[in-house]
Amino acid sequence: MNYRIISSILSRILAIEAGLLLLPLAVAGIYRENVLPFVWTVALCLAGAVALYLPGRKHTGALHPREGFVSVALSWLVISLFGALPFVFSGAIPNYISALFEIISGFTTTGASVLPEVEPVPKGVLFWRSFSHFVGGMGVLVFMMAVLPTDDEHSMHLLRAEVPGPVKGKLVPKMRDTARVLYVIYLVMTLVEVVLLLVGGLSLFDALTTAFGTAGTGGFGVRNASIGAYDSAYVDIVVGVFMMLFGINFNLYYIVLVKRSLKGLKSQELGVYLLVIAASTVTIALNIAHLYGGVLHALRYSFFQVSSIITTTGFATADFDLWPSYSRGLLVLLMLMGACAGSTGGGTKVARLVILGKAIWSEIKKMLFPRSVSRVSLDGEPLEADAIHNTMVFYMLYTLIALGAFLLLSVEGFDLETTFTSVISCLSNIGPGLALVGPTGNFSIWSGASKLVLSLCMLLGRLEIFPVITLFASGVWGRKS
Amino acid sequence: MNYRIISSILSRILAIEAGLLLLPLAVAGIYRENVLPFVWTVALCLAGAVALYLPGRKHTGALHPREGFVSVALSWLVISLFGALPFVFSGAIPNYISALFEIISGFTTTGASVLPEVEPVPKGVLFWRSFSHFVGGMGVLVFMMAVLPTDDEHSMHLLRAEVPGPVKGKLVPKMRDTARVLYVIYLVMTLVEVVLLLVGGLSLFDALTTAFGTAGTGGFGVRNASIGAYDSAYVDIVVGVFMMLFGINFNLYYIVLVKRSLKGLKSQELGVYLLVIAASTVTIALNIAHLYGGVLHALRYSFFQVSSIITTTGFATADFDLWPSYSRGLLVLLMLMGACAGSTGGGTKVARLVILGKAIWSEIKKMLFPRSVSRVSLDGEPLEADAIHNTMVFYMLYTLIALGAFLLLSVEGFDLETTFTSVISCLSNIGPGLALVGPTGNFSIWSGASKLVLSLCMLLGRLEIFPVITLFASGVWGRKS
Repeated sequence: MNYRIISSILSRILAIEAGLLLLPLAVAGIYRENVLPFVWTVALCLAGAVALYLPGRKHTGALHPREGFVSVALSWLVISLFGALPFVFSGAIPNYISALFEIISGFTTTGASVLPEVEPVPKGVLFWRSFSHFVGGMGVLVFMMAVLPTDDEHSMHLLRAEVPGPVKGKLVPKMRDTARVLYVIYLVMTLVEVVLLLVGGLSLFDALTTAFGTAGTGGFGVRNASIGAYDSAYVDIVVGVFMMLFGINFNLYYIVLVKRSLKGLKSQELGVYLLVIAASTVTIALNIAHLYGGVLHALRYSFFQVSSIITTTGFATADFDLWPSYSRGLLVLLMLMGACAGSTGGGTKVARLVILGKAIWSEIKKMLFPRSVSRVSLDGEPLEADAIHNTMVFYMLYTLIALGAFLLLSVEGFDLETTFTSVISCLSNIGPGLALVGPTGNFSIWSGASKLVLSLCMLLGRLEIFPVITLFASGVWGRKS
Repeated sequence: MNYRIISSILSRILAIEAGLLLLPLAVAGIYRENVLPFVWTVALCLAGAVALYLPGRKHTGALHPREGFVSVALSWLVISLFGALPFVFSGAIPNYISALFEIISGFTTTGASVLPEVEPVPKGVLFWRSFSHFVGGMGVLVFMMAVLPTDDEHSMHLLRAEVPGPVKGKLVPKMRDTARVLYVIYLVMTLVEVVLLLVGGLSLFDALTTAFGTAGTGGFGVRNASIGAYDSAYVDIVVGVFMMLFGINFNLYYIVLVKRSLKGLKSQELGVYLLVIAASTVTIALNIAHLYGGVLHALRYSFFQVSSIITTTGFATADFDLWPSYSRGLLVLLMLMGACAGSTGGGTKVARLVILGKAIWSEIKKMLFPRSVSRVSLDGEPLEADAIHNTMVFYMLYTLIALGAFLLLSVEGFDLETTFTSVISCLSNIGPGLALVGPTGNFSIWSGASKLVLSLCMLLGRLEIFPVITLFASGVWGRKS
């Protein structure tokens, strides 16, 4: 293991975090709140950056896939360990484990909160909480690549480990350029949403934080009643549509917007994604029509919730825990599926489900007609056996991790629905679950140990399992290299 | 598709069912109950057998894998369609759909019941209900092979389709001999249990029906309170141990008992199976100790329930739906896992989990050290990539079917725990679930349509998905051959 190179990467990440913290510091200043929690955190980040810079100063040699995985996993851990401090220093969340849960929930764009009420929390802290979604959405290392000079060969392994989904598009030959292009698209889309929300009457603070929550598909709100607090069909539609847009593979935007080709629209993943949204919205609207006085009015709530859950954002305009079983059950299934690969959304990704469906179909055919040849292809390109195998291994691991965490949490004795949806919500980076962790509940019910299990689930979910496992497995096999 | 050969197989199956029905007919006679329900059913079975014999009389050509799958699936459907009649004719379950659910639950050794009370049901009908477990446990077609002259090449494809588990042992060169050896072991073990239960003070009727329920890992009881009704630690231990024994791969008994080799005991699947039982028994006992006045007393109940659920039998000595979350959660996980391959138990099988665990471990290694070579082996023999792939496809299909059925059932509006465990319980052939379908509840809550969905789940679970899918897919691709 090349520790120097990892040390150097972590040093940069901390320096960047110190820079990012200047924004909430400024917000706290504007609202005449106590800026010391941020000043102290910035100082500690810089101290950490210097401490890690010294050993990593003269790094040599290549960054292997394994080091890429470990760097990414450690980077996320380190920014979270420091990022939790403003919550503690400000007194908003005095317990460090709870604060760590909150910021990991932020960076991983989960949006699960331990706060029963957010409105009494200082604006600067709320801004940092929502801003962590925006930073985590595109990836902390992708951001580092976009702003700092890095080696392209190194970048590839980092990008592979951090960008979600089974297929990593090779958009632009230079990785740094890719990272910049993606960030520009991301920024522009976020700004458009901010403007539209300002038009809808939101304050600049609310518009910014809401847009951060949407862009990262995170879901932390600045109102106790989430988006429902604005009580405006216009805001619901803007946020609902933008959540859906941020759940689409960013490669498609690149192809359509930058390359000006409509080929991107022919993506099979996009087709399934839109179809599932449409079908879920309509059937849930029919299922809840009696609660909202008619199907048309129900459509507003069902579209928003479907878009919020499938993209794993987790905003709410209604207490869907009170909806009938079909709607709640379907929302759980959408939690498992998640958004498109290469988007800011979580879950197991639509692309994997498409690959899986095709692989199973081909398997059934093969069993019936052993001599027939059937190849699995996606968007016209044949899929390698390795890619299919990898997809299945991912699902298996996802399931085993979910069941294992479920068992660990069940010791606390909450009902199985709360326990199960807590795990799924964290592993898929959604935010709310059902029952006690539903839209009106929160995760403060869990003990410190369970919060750590759930934090690990959030990291496993955001980094798609492999980097985090590598970090643990390195302890086992570290001596071999 | 070779329809003649399928017709000939179905004709034999119906003739055998007519023969099997003579037993409950005799029981009804002994207890001076109405024998007409059985007389009529026997007559209809024979009529069906003759009707199917005529077209199948002059069958020629080979039995391809596809026809093997379709024959097995149709056989199970046909014996169920006729086997449901005694329930209807006797008035025990007047509704045909409910009766069909009950007998499919019997043959598939699920043990899920629509009857709120079993004690008022005539003895002859109760005997038929429990006997269906015994017949279904080893497989209806395995039974046919054991008693009727059949071609060995044909038998292989039928055996493959009907015997559970990813690995089909080639025990004896001749398939018919294999079938007979397995049946003799099965019969002897059942008889030993009957004797032990008679020693424990049970009536012959209770001992026989309980042993049938244990042998097939079915779980239909003849008392409202299941095994708890006997209120005897001795009976609990006998039934608990025998459930565990019937959940072990029968190939191992063959190797140990017939070949007199201890190699069978080195099976990795057996090791994991026993380890899981031990660990679950102890941790559940600790979790429920406060309910039973101490860990030692709790062990009696936890061992029985763990053995009952992991083998997918479904007998109960306590209302485990009242146990704390950890115990209930763990029982759900055991439901998903199930017993050993090649046993009479259901679920996804321990062997598949072992293969999966090894495949994932090897995958992680490969990712960390791309140049390393790691092969997956089971019991010292290397596993082919195809076997691993097939295992994963099986899990994926199992999961997708479970989630699909869950969504269909959720329309009825019962709580998610009832809905989810109903599906898992049927798909894994267990019997009881949690909440409304827990040990004190029953499946009569579901509508006819949902009962059909659950019946399909039971068949999919018992035949391990592929034969049933083949039956449906044949409609799609039938014209191609």
